Amino acid sequence: MSLLVVGSVALDSVETPFGRADDALGGSATFFSAAASLFCPVQLVGVVGDDYPLEALAFLEERGVDLSGLERARGESFRWAGAYSYDLNSRETLETRLGVFADFQPKIPAAFRSAEWVFLGNIDPVLQLDVLDQIDQPRFVACDTMNFWIEGKRDALLRLLSRVDMLLVNDAEARELSGDFNLTRAARWIQARGPRYLVIKKGEHGAILFTPHSVFFVPGFPLEEVFDPTGAGDAFAGGFLGHLAQCGRLDEHDLRRAMVYGSVLGSYAVERFSVERFRDLTMDEVEERVRAFREMTVFELPVDAGV
Amino acid sequence: MSLLVVGSVALDSVETPFGRADDALGGSATFFSAAASLFCPVQLVGVVGDDYPLEALAFLEERGVDLSGLERARGESFRWAGAYSYDLNSRETLETRLGVFADFQPKIPAAFRSAEWVFLGNIDPVLQLDVLDQIDQPRFVACDTMNFWIEGKRDALLRLLSRVDMLLVNDAEARELSGDFNLTRAARWIQARGPRYLVIKKGEHGAILFTPHSVFFVPGFPLEEVFDPTGAGDAFAGGFLGHLAQCGRLDEHDLRRAMVYGSVLGSYAVERFSVERFRDLTMDEVEERVRAFREMTVFELPVDAGV
Repeated sequence: MSLLVVGSVALDSVETPFGRADDALGGSATFFSAAASLFCPVQLVGVVGDDYPLEALAFLEERGVDLSGLERARGESFRWAGAYSYDLNSRETLETRLGVFADFQPKIPAAFRSAEWVFLGNIDPVLQLDVLDQIDQPRFVACDTMNFWIEGKRDALLRLLSRVDMLLVNDAEARELSGDFNLTRAARWIQARGPRYLVIKKGEHGAILFTPHSVFFVPGFPLEEVFDPTGAGDAFAGGFLGHLAQCGRLDEHDLRRAMVYGSVLGSYAVERFSVERFRDLTMDEVEERVRAFREMTVFELPVDAGV
Repeated sequence: MSLLVVGSVALDSVETPFGRADDALGGSATFFSAAASLFCPVQLVGVVGDDYPLEALAFLEERGVDLSGLERARGESFRWAGAYSYDLNSRETLETRLGVFADFQPKIPAAFRSAEWVFLGNIDPVLQLDVLDQIDQPRFVACDTMNFWIEGKRDALLRLLSRVDMLLVNDAEARELSGDFNLTRAARWIQARGPRYLVIKKGEHGAILFTPHSVFFVPGFPLEEVFDPTGAGDAFAGGFLGHLAQCGRLDEHDLRRAMVYGSVLGSYAVERFSVERFRDLTMDEVEERVRAFREMTVFELPVDAGV
């Protein structure tokens, strides 16, 4: 059950209505690993600069994240700074300094090339394709992307889609990629380009899984306090793939449960700044919230109730 | 199982990307009755002008909607004209002519005063209170409202809330009413003002039921074609109250099923202009979509699956 993630390892500075954090752990691979490592060992491939506080990643290593694929390059680490609006529903990017990430050429260590479960975090689709070429025979490959690549690297992205099992994007990205406002039609358009499975994330409105023959919805968890939405999508992916890698199966029931685990991990991610919530998050707490999701969505058919 | 609705009976002119309809049947009481009458007899109280094509309402009467409380006044009927954007997610009101609706003073016929199940459609909360005073001992009262009354008749609206069992509003209205952007906190604020139950409708993102001890989510039905969103909220209310009145119970299971019936009727409403879809909609089609909602939301807990 080897689970590989390739993505960014960054330092985030975030302002929310509740406070601010400077140079906190961030990046898609970091959030993914923090979530997925609750389920199974994780192999991380990424790059940081020589200014990165590597000791801050020790808690990931203690949880079974193998950092031997984390390259340390000369120069500055990837830094992102953003500010959220009062309602946390929109954010402004204040600064993006790619640093060593600008020249990132992922090199998959020999020991990672047999990975069965792979998550390609949001990086240049050309690099995502290059990663795929370095992996022997993955059983399940999921990828993320964003508007920047949809607009600027559309051809490479479409080539990538034809080679992955699943795409995870948000609703705006699914609409932009397909050119269709209707999410159901957008989903069919994307699935026709390759990915058997598609997850559309809708923030507070939950997430939708499209398979070839079904649609499955998970609501957003009704939190009274959302502290910092950064990383929720990558934590979702970590919970999703973490569960699949742990159970080692891919049938409809497993994928649906993976959606719920993804939603649970995403909902915990936003309760504190950065990856802070994952430091002490336990599998018991995860399972408790999985049961809460069931409680929030279950209903009896009329025939069950004798109506 | 007497179900009473008080609300508007209007003539709508609607433009959507798919076409236009002029002077089509509209109004909250009309949409509500068209949906609810699939479940049980409905008593309608409203007003139309002497220009209203009453024969167009015959199909409602044939389905068990008692129109003896529909007043015919001298003057023009309530007319609304609106246009939807290409994505159907926003609409512009082109014209509102209240006509005889401006002086509407609902008079509940003696035969309707023993109604057990009551829906107060979106009208002036002063009138909604006045209706309540005319009903003997209702078992369950639900009401709708809108930003116009939240802003202009807040005191009357708060008095009304202390006397109803359930409020149905959309997310923007719940936020405006409570002054809180967070929907979970907004819900608790509203429930503390009286309504034991609260339904927050979120359009394509589904709906949420808040009870004193639980939260229940229903997703939006994934339609590939949404033709005309007008009336979806009132059709939702019709499906909701129709199911409750039909089954005659109010326990958690019934309320959850009512949410699903509401979503089903709302999803059918948008498939055609006006109330057109309800002319030939059958209970078999309704039950089929109820099962589809279950299929879209059900998942096995890890323990069920032996994980």
